[in-house]
Parts: sequence; structure tokens; C-alpha cells
Amino acid sequence: MSRKIGVIGSGHVGSTVAHYIVSAGFADELVMIDTNEAKVVADAVDLRDAMPNLPFHTNITVNDYSALKDADVVISAMGKVSLQSSKSSDRFAELPFTSAQVKDVAEQLKTSGFNGVLVDISNPCDVITSFYQQYTGLPKNQVIGTGTLLDSARMLREVSEELNVDPKSVHGYNLGEHGNSQFTAWSTVTVFDQPITELAAEKGLDLAAMDDGARKGGFQVFSGKQYTNYGVATAAVRLANAVLSNSMTVMPVSNYQADLDVYLSYPAVIGRKGVVKRVALDLTQEEQAKLQKSADFIKSNVKKYS
Amino acid sequence: MSRKIGVIGSGHVGSTVAHYIVSAGFADELVMIDTNEAKVVADAVDLRDAMPNLPFHTNITVNDYSALKDADVVISAMGKVSLQSSKSSDRFAELPFTSAQVKDVAEQLKTSGFNGVLVDISNPCDVITSFYQQYTGLPKNQVIGTGTLLDSARMLREVSEELNVDPKSVHGYNLGEHGNSQFTAWSTVTVFDQPITELAAEKGLDLAAMDDGARKGGFQVFSGKQYTNYGVATAAVRLANAVLSNSMTVMPVSNYQADLDVYLSYPAVIGRKGVVKRVALDLTQEEQAKLQKSADFIKSNVKKYS
Amino acid sequence: MSRKIGVIGSGHVGSTVAHYIVSAGFADELVMIDTNEAKVVADAVDLRDAMPNLPFHTNITVNDYSALKDADVVISAMGKVSLQSSKSSDRFAELPFTSAQVKDVAEQLKTSGFNGVLVDISNPCDVITSFYQQYTGLPKNQVIGTGTLLDSARMLREVSEELNVDPKSVHGYNLGEHGNSQFTAWSTVTVFDQPITELAAEKGLDLAAMDDGARKGGFQVFSGKQYTNYGVATAAVRLANAVLSNSMTVMPVSNYQADLDVYLSYPAVIGRKGVVKRVALDLTQEEQAKLQKSADFIKSNVKKYS
Amino acid sequence: MSRKIGVIGSGHVGSTVAHYIVSAGFADELVMIDTNEAKVVADAVDLRDAMPNLPFHTNITVNDYSALKDADVVISAMGKVSLQSSKSSDRFAELPFTSAQVKDVAEQLKTSGFNGVLVDISNPCDVITSFYQQYTGLPKNQVIGTGTLLDSARMLREVSEELNVDPKSVHGYNLGEHGNSQFTAWSTVTVFDQPITELAAEKGLDLAAMDDGARKGGFQVFSGKQYTNYGVATAAVRLANAVLSNSMTVMPVSNYQADLDVYLSYPAVIGRKGVVKRVALDLTQEEQAKLQKSADFIKSNVKKYS
Repeated sequence: MSRKIGVIGSGHVGSTVAHYIVSAGFADELVMIDTNEAKVVADAVDLRDAMPNLPFHTNITVNDYSALKDADVVISAMGKVSLQSSKSSDRFAELPFTSAQVKDVAEQLKTSGFNGVLVDISNPCDVITSFYQQYTGLPKNQVIGTGTLLDSARMLREVSEELNVDPKSVHGYNLGEHGNSQFTAWSTVTVFDQPITELAAEKGLDLAAMDDGARKGGFQVFSGKQYTNYGVATAAVRLANAVLSNSMTVMPVSNYQADLDVYLSYPAVIGRKGVVKRVALDLTQEEQAKLQKSADFIKSNVKKYS
Repeated sequence: MSRKIGVIGSGHVGSTVAHYIVSAGFADELVMIDTNEAKVVADAVDLRDAMPNLPFHTNITVNDYSALKDADVVISAMGKVSLQSSKSSDRFAELPFTSAQVKDVAEQLKTSGFNGVLVDISNPCDVITSFYQQYTGLPKNQVIGTGTLLDSARMLREVSEELNVDPKSVHGYNLGEHGNSQFTAWSTVTVFDQPITELAAEKGLDLAAMDDGARKGGFQVFSGKQYTNYGVATAAVRLANAVLSNSMTVMPVSNYQADLDVYLSYPAVIGRKGVVKRVALDLTQEEQAKLQKSADFIKSNVKKYS
Repeated sequence: MSRKIGVIGSGHVGSTVAHYIVSAGFADELVMIDTNEAKVVADAVDLRDAMPNLPFHTNITVNDYSALKDADVVISAMGKVSLQSSKSSDRFAELPFTSAQVKDVAEQLKTSGFNGVLVDISNPCDVITSFYQQYTGLPKNQVIGTGTLLDSARMLREVSEELNVDPKSVHGYNLGEHGNSQFTAWSTVTVFDQPITELAAEKGLDLAAMDDGARKGGFQVFSGKQYTNYGVATAAVRLANAVLSNSMTVMPVSNYQADLDVYLSYPAVIGRKGVVKRVALDLTQEEQAKLQKSADFIKSNVKKYS
Repeated sequence: MSRKIGVIGSGHVGSTVAHYIVSAGFADELVMIDTNEAKVVADAVDLRDAMPNLPFHTNITVNDYSALKDADVVISAMGKVSLQSSKSSDRFAELPFTSAQVKDVAEQLKTSGFNGVLVDISNPCDVITSFYQQYTGLPKNQVIGTGTLLDSARMLREVSEELNVDPKSVHGYNLGEHGNSQFTAWSTVTVFDQPITELAAEKGLDLAAMDDGARKGGFQVFSGKQYTNYGVATAAVRLANAVLSNSMTVMPVSNYQADLDVYLSYPAVIGRKGVVKRVALDLTQEEQAKLQKSADFIKSNVKKYS
């Protein structure tokens, strides 16, 4: 029945997601939704103006929730990044806005009969993903946040630049909250087929400096343009494609952790049904403690804003 | 020697051009330049953060004109769209800004030794393209503006929506200035293998309404987000790819017209050397007059601001 | 529900179709079928061996007609090209083989409950496409042959090489039988925005020589490797993609012509439902006569072999 | 200066390499060479017949070594697979043929002034790669064989099917000769972020059975069609793309090992200059012994046939 993707929100991130999907021919049907009708129509027309010069064809529908009934994937990119100050860049600053929005969006998704996989980018990611699952009533495996798929990419980018190697040849994860309590699980990171911790010991690499570099990169993006879009949109679309093609890819995304009773980022196998399987990492005690702390932080916020 | 593309300007359009190139793997080397160092660094880091989740690899260099020495194509997307009021959307409002910038950019391109094809998106497109040619001293065939490649796309989109047909199955052009004096040369437009003028007569189609629709579309985009990016970025990248692959594609772009002694949009054959050949249209007298008028308007402005 | 494509036949053409689809990520599910189990398994495993080095994921199922129940498109590429002698290259030489096969394939498609669009490459294309429609009982619009989409491509290639222009900037069609009675409808061909007949008159171009060139090209391919695959597989996949994305693209393909009561190639609008609309060409009397002759030839063979 | 790739040999593998490059738009210039002029012309024309239905443009040159002077990458796919019996599938059966050919090809490459990266697929891969380096006189880092990049892919495919996970989420290598003395270095293989040896112990997985499965897959391909093409062509093109984009990707390919004084497959970092860096694995003693044995076998054959 072809590929149908919905994108909720046509701000910096949502419109970039839509453009990437259209320019790469990833979907046959794209449903774009935003409360700012003028903006979402502007983006839709602009994308249609691109199509005569593109090799692919995508049918775009605007602001029609009923069209999401048979969507394979819906990506939530609504938010109000202007609520984050350029200094603090605290994703929780968006919570009052997004937690109000999420109820409305979830209600309309439910009414539409949508039963695909919901990919949440909206921040604070883990909390909002949790709310989406509650409010839509979709099975937990069908609701996923992009979470630290972006933060992991930043870490991989930093390591790759430090060591002059393709970031896709570096493996490993940032875990926990897509926010300030996250951390790089260095015990999971390998490069040149060696645990990076060993390599660091041998060569005197400074892992803390790489952590700083990844963070500094994120900060440079945010402070330089007051939002970030390309990294996170690419992560979200890769996740959506894994669902569409049932690829069973292992990715660090925000998914429900039964043992911690919370949504946070931890690698999972992604396929047609969303989260198909949890991956069990062999973390160090210190990393376990950080994960627990991150889980507690998210949990307390889910409670606070429910 | 791989593919190297430069992008001057990292505003709405330039960053979208860069993202499209990186996400599609169109270039091996991308050189991004902007006077706003914080913004262009933000975009470059954001694109690098996308790379671990992309199947392609692009090497990005920031704010280094000397890296353009052996670039195949440089795309100029600098501008200050905020100078256009959302009501008038007059691209000439940007001229004071861009005409000052173009001198500096051209000087630096010249100093770099760049001898590829320069693709100008900066507005007012035909005037700025003309200035680029003058200031860089590059052969006229190597300096091209995206011009009405975008306006033609808007017309094709409008026709395709009206007649429920793939815009890539509609052929024809908007000609002249990439601005208010442009026009759809309906005599060049065919759909369902029929001149659209005949079809219009048969079926009572309202070509003027389609003209309005195309314009209204452009206006919807601009008024809905105060800039346009996806349509024009796609046009520019398609043009760049035609140069890179020496595809000899016929496209309506702003190129130097010897008979009119001016840069304006008229179909040309595009290849490795830029404009390889001019295409001679069989326009109606009315269309010829409009083209002349458009040429006169551009010419007077080139003189005025030189 | 993602994109699902079936490919019947894993000979030179079918396996190339499958490889192109997998390498470009055009489908999420690919069903490969061949009576030569060893060959189709070999191709499937070989494609799976490609996947770790490809950016896309495709799930491949082998020799299971029931998996075609919910396929969007099924492409028939079965045949026995060895029955064509390298001298005559008469596609009717394959008819005894394919007309027997088509019954069996159609029966199994019917049993599977398949109700998507059937794209036939198997030769003689127009006759076999007609049989497929009869035997499957699918609506006529859902059964299409690639027909002269390939022959048109050969003509466009020849014109483009003669005039040093992108073949995608040349427009026009070969019509009628995908076989010896086909012809280039030169009245439909335009290049440099001019009817090629006018250009030919002006510049002394020899259209008959171009016809010969296109034919000679086809002959060079067949005699040089005793089969042809890349051109026709690309045509078939482009057609399938037009269906998947409901792109309403105008293409010269073998589709049922009510007035002539026969399947032959004539431009049609292609979308999700297959043939969505017929395009009416303004052919010359000579071309009309050739089309009639081609129709008569196909018709007599459909009767003879039914 | 755009991307230019040469392909030597237009048999099953070479023509598939060429088709993949053209269909994906990976090169701007493609030079196809084969001693069987009729076959390589057939493939070139067939690919040109595909172009009107493809979104990319590639300029194809046939049988002109001088065009390789400024090629970025040349892929050698010449061979005579028919010399391998369907039972034994011993790649050394091709050696008398390929070792004669390689001298001639290398001589012509040298004469052309080619100074890019030479990627060898021709079998027996490690021996022929070694000969190519000797005969062309190119620096060792610029001559690479696809080697066990294919065998590794087969192992990844087998593991992924056994454990229902994306093969791109499994990491690890087959090492040594691209032939019967190769082996899976299970100590390098991880899946679900766990060493597969641990997982195997936990879950009672049979690694030997997976080794057999990978081998059986290769045998199924060869016995089912008497050649293999998709897996190896995809590996070669991925390797070429890593060179073109200077991606610094870690890949198990046949590269010169100074300590063993032989070409064999071992992971290396691949970039614009070919092999940029060797990766040092922490193999088990048993694996080291197997590698040495494989090295000895290749070395003795290089001597024997020099």
C-alpha cells in the first residue's frame, strides 16, 4: 500500500524532516500537520515547488489528521524551541508548551485510528514520548523517541574527528535522558575494532575531552542558530526507515524499559512493529548508576507533569 | 578528483542547499562560507552530526575561500531576505545588501583561483548574476543564475495540480527576470503531448488563473514563512548536478543573452562548462515583447547599481 | 503498509530488476519467483550478500505466490530469450514458451488474491500483456506492458547522441507493438523546444538514419550479449515506481486501447491504479496507418495463440 | 573535476558494477573496457538505453585506456568464471587466464598515466591484486582487492538471519585469502553489543554451523547460476565510494601486510589515497595461526605464478 509518513509540526525540525523525506523519495504519501496553518501550507507548497526538479514524487496532504489512519509512521516534531534560552539550552523549558500540545495531538491521532509507529522528537523527548504512549494508548513498542540517537551521533562525530575515521566505523552509545543527565557509555564504544577505553589508555586519549567536544558541538549548533535541525531530523528519518523496511536495526532510542518503568534511551532492535527487542548491555557499575540517575530524573518529571 | 561544491551563504537557502547535497551524497567536498561565522559553523556541525545516520560521507570545510580553487561549482545563496517585506516580496529590496556583498565574494573567488561554474541564487538574481560575471571576470558561460528555473517549477506545479498529472510530464518555461516582470511563455508549454493553449481552448482552461495560481503559491510560501527555500534550493542543486555530470540538460536559467546584452532566464543547454548552447524558442510577438520589457528592466538596474 | 513488489522470472531481466530495486531501496518487501528454484535462490542469496554493504534493507521472499496477495506491483520478466536467434531477434520466437507460462503464472496470481498492478516485460510484450489480463481477470487498467517505453528510450538516446543533448531533454514516443511493427512517431518528438521534424528540415537531419541508429543500438545490445537487460529493467522499475508513488506520469507503455480493442504502446497517465487516463496524440495520417497496422498484427497473434 | 571510474571487464561482475554505478549516479564518467568488444559495447549501449528512464546522467566511454589517465578509481573485474567448475568453485582455476590478462591490463594502465586507486575483484583476488601492484608500479596503498569484504558480508548475512537482526548491526570480519583458506575471526564479531563468542556460549549458538551457512550460501549462489555478481559488485562499489569520498571507513579488504609481506584481507582504513592505515586486531592464537597459513598459501602462489 506504499509508504505513508505523517509529520506533526512544521518548525525548523519538522520541515527539515519533511524536506529530507521528499528529496530522497522515502515516502509515497506525506501528511504534514501544524497548528500554524500558514507555515505548514508554506512548507507544503515549497516542497511541491521542488518536485518538478526532483526525481521522486510524493503526495502531500496538509492538516488532515484523518489521513493518518493508515500511516506507517508518524513523526512528532512539534515544539517551541524559542522557549529554550540560548544560554541554558534546557529542553525542559519546552515542557509547558509541548505537554499541553501532546494531549491534543495524541487525541487526534487516536481519533484517526492511527495504529503505526509513533516517533517522537518533541522535547523533553523521554517525557513527551511517555505522554504520547499514555495518551494514544498505543502499545509501548509502537511509541519511540529519537532520544540519544542524536547524542550518540554527536559522540561518534567527535570520536571520528579526533581519530580521523569514518563515524560509521565507530560503534557505541550515549544513554539515558535526551537531556543533561545523559552520558556516553564508553564501555560500549569501539573504534578500530578495539574498546576505546583500551585505546585511550594506550594512546593517552582524553575521553572526557571527547565528551566535552560532543557537548560543545551541540552547543555550537544551538548557540549559532538558536535551534538544531539537520542532525536530529536525519536521526528521526533513519529510525522511520528502519520501521518501514522492518530492518531490525540496533539503535539507541528512547524506548520503554520495563525494569526501570520509564522511557529512556537504550539500544533496541527496530522493525515494523517499532521496538522488537531490547538489547542488554554489559555496563560498568558507574554507568549503571548514571543510567539509574537519568531514569529517576525522567520519572520524576513524568509524574510532575502528568 | 571527486566532486567539490562551494556554498556561499548559510541562511535559509544556503543551509538547505548544503543539507540537500550532504543528505543525497552529491558532493565529496563541500565548502560552506558565511560572514556570520557562528551560523555557518552551527550548520556545518549540525550536518556532521547527521553523517553517522547517513549512508554518504561528505567532507565539510568552513569559511575557507582558498578551498574553492578547484571547486567544480560554487553556489551563491547569500542575501538578506528580511529586507523583503512580507507584503511586497520585491526581490530588489535585497539589492543594496547583495550588491555590496557580491563584490567582496567575487573578489575572494577570484583570488582563490576558482575557475568552475558559478551558480547564483542571490537576489535580484539576474542583476547579481551579471555582477558576479563582471567582478569575477569568469567567462559568461560559467556564470549562471537559477532565475526562472524556480518560477517554471511553480508553473509546472500549478498546471500539474490543475490537470492531475505529474509536473515532470508537463514541459515549458517561465522566462525573463526572476522577479515581477517575468512571464509564463504559454506558447512553450505542453501537457498530454498537446500545446496547452490548444487544450485550454478545447476544455475552457483558464491560463491566466494558472498564472495566478503559480504566483499565489509563491506568495503563500513567502507570506507563510517569510522566506522560501525548498523549491529554489532544489532548482540550484539540480543545476549544479547538470554541470557536474555534464548532462547537457535544457533548463530555463539566467544566462547571458548576447542579442539582448543582458542576463535573463531563457532555456539553455547546461553541461560541464556551464552554458553550452542557447536554445532558440519560437515565441509569440506578445511574449517577445514581454521578454524585451523584462530585459530592459534588468538592464536599467544593472546600470543603476553598477 | 510499506512497498511490496513481486518479480516473476529470475533470468537476465528479472534478476536485474530485482537487483536495481534492492540496490536503490525502492521496496520494503521483494518477492522473487522462478520455476528454476536453484537460480532464483542463487539470486536471492546473492542479493542478501549485497545487503551488508548497501544502505537500504529489503526483505526477500522466494517462490511463494501467496506472498503476492498484498503486493503493490508484480513485474513479469519470465521468458526464454535463447529462443530468439541472434540474427532475427524476433520476440515472437518466445511465444510458445511464454504463452504456456503465462497461464500458469496468471492462475497462481489469481489464487494468491493479488489485486495490484501487473507490469509485463515478457515477450512478445503486447500479446502476453493481453493474455495476462484475460487469465488474471484483473481490470484492464491494472495490467500494463513496458512495451515501447524501452524503444522510446532507444530513440531518445539516439537523438540525444546525434544532437549532444540530455536524452531527458528530448520528448516523444515510439508507438505500437514492442516488436518489428513499431515506429517512431516523429510528429511527437521535440528537442530544443522545437518539433524535430522542423529541426530536421532546417539542419538537414536524417530522421530515418536516427531510426536506424536506434534499431542498430538495440541490435548491438542483443548481438553483443544475446539478451538485453539494463534498458528494459530500468523502464520496468520506473513504471513500477510511478504506480507506487501515484505520480500520474505520462509514459508510452502497452495499455489497452478501447478503440482498437488491443494492447499496444501509446502514452498513458500512470498512477496507483495503473493506467489512469489515455493521452490523445495528434498523429499524422501515415503514423495512424502504422499504428493500425501494428494493432492488426498484435490482434491477429492474440487470436492465434489464445 | 567530477567522479571518474573505470571498469575493466564486462562479464557478469563488471557489467553489474557498471550498472550499479550508473543506476545510482555514483560517477560522472564511466570508462568500460573489455577484450570482447561486442560485449562491452552491448553493455554500454544497454546502459545508455537505461538513461532516459534514470534520474542521473553518466558519460560512458568504451575501450579507451587513455581515458583512465585521470580516473579516481579503476575496478578490475576481468576473469573467466567458466574455468571454475560448479563443483569445486576453486578461484585458482582462473589463475592461468587472469595472470596472463593482468600483465596486459597493468601495462595499459601504466601507459595511460593512471594514478588513482586500483580495486581488484579478479580472482584469485589476493594473488592478482599483488600482481597488479607489481606490474603497475603503483604505491601499495593504491592497490586494493575486494577480498573478504564479500566473505565478511556473507558471514554477517548468516549471523543476521540466525539472530533476526539487521546485518549492518552485526560487526566483524572474515580474514585472509579470498578463497578456501579464509576464516571467520569470531573473536572480532559482535552482535547485540556482545562478543558473539559469549552469546554463543550463553545461548548454545553453533558458530561452526554459521560458518557452514555462510559457505553454503556462497555455494548456493555459485551452483545456482555458475557465477556470483550482486554481492561482490556491491562490495567493490562500496569500496570505490569510500575512496571517492575519502570516508576513512574501516573495511576488511585485501591490502598489503608489511609484516607478512603479502596481500591478504585484514581491516584497513580506506580513503582518497586507498589504504590510509592498517587496523590492528587482537586475534586469538588460533586465528593468528590461520592467518599465517592463509598468508603462506597466497605467498607461495604469488611466487609460483610470477
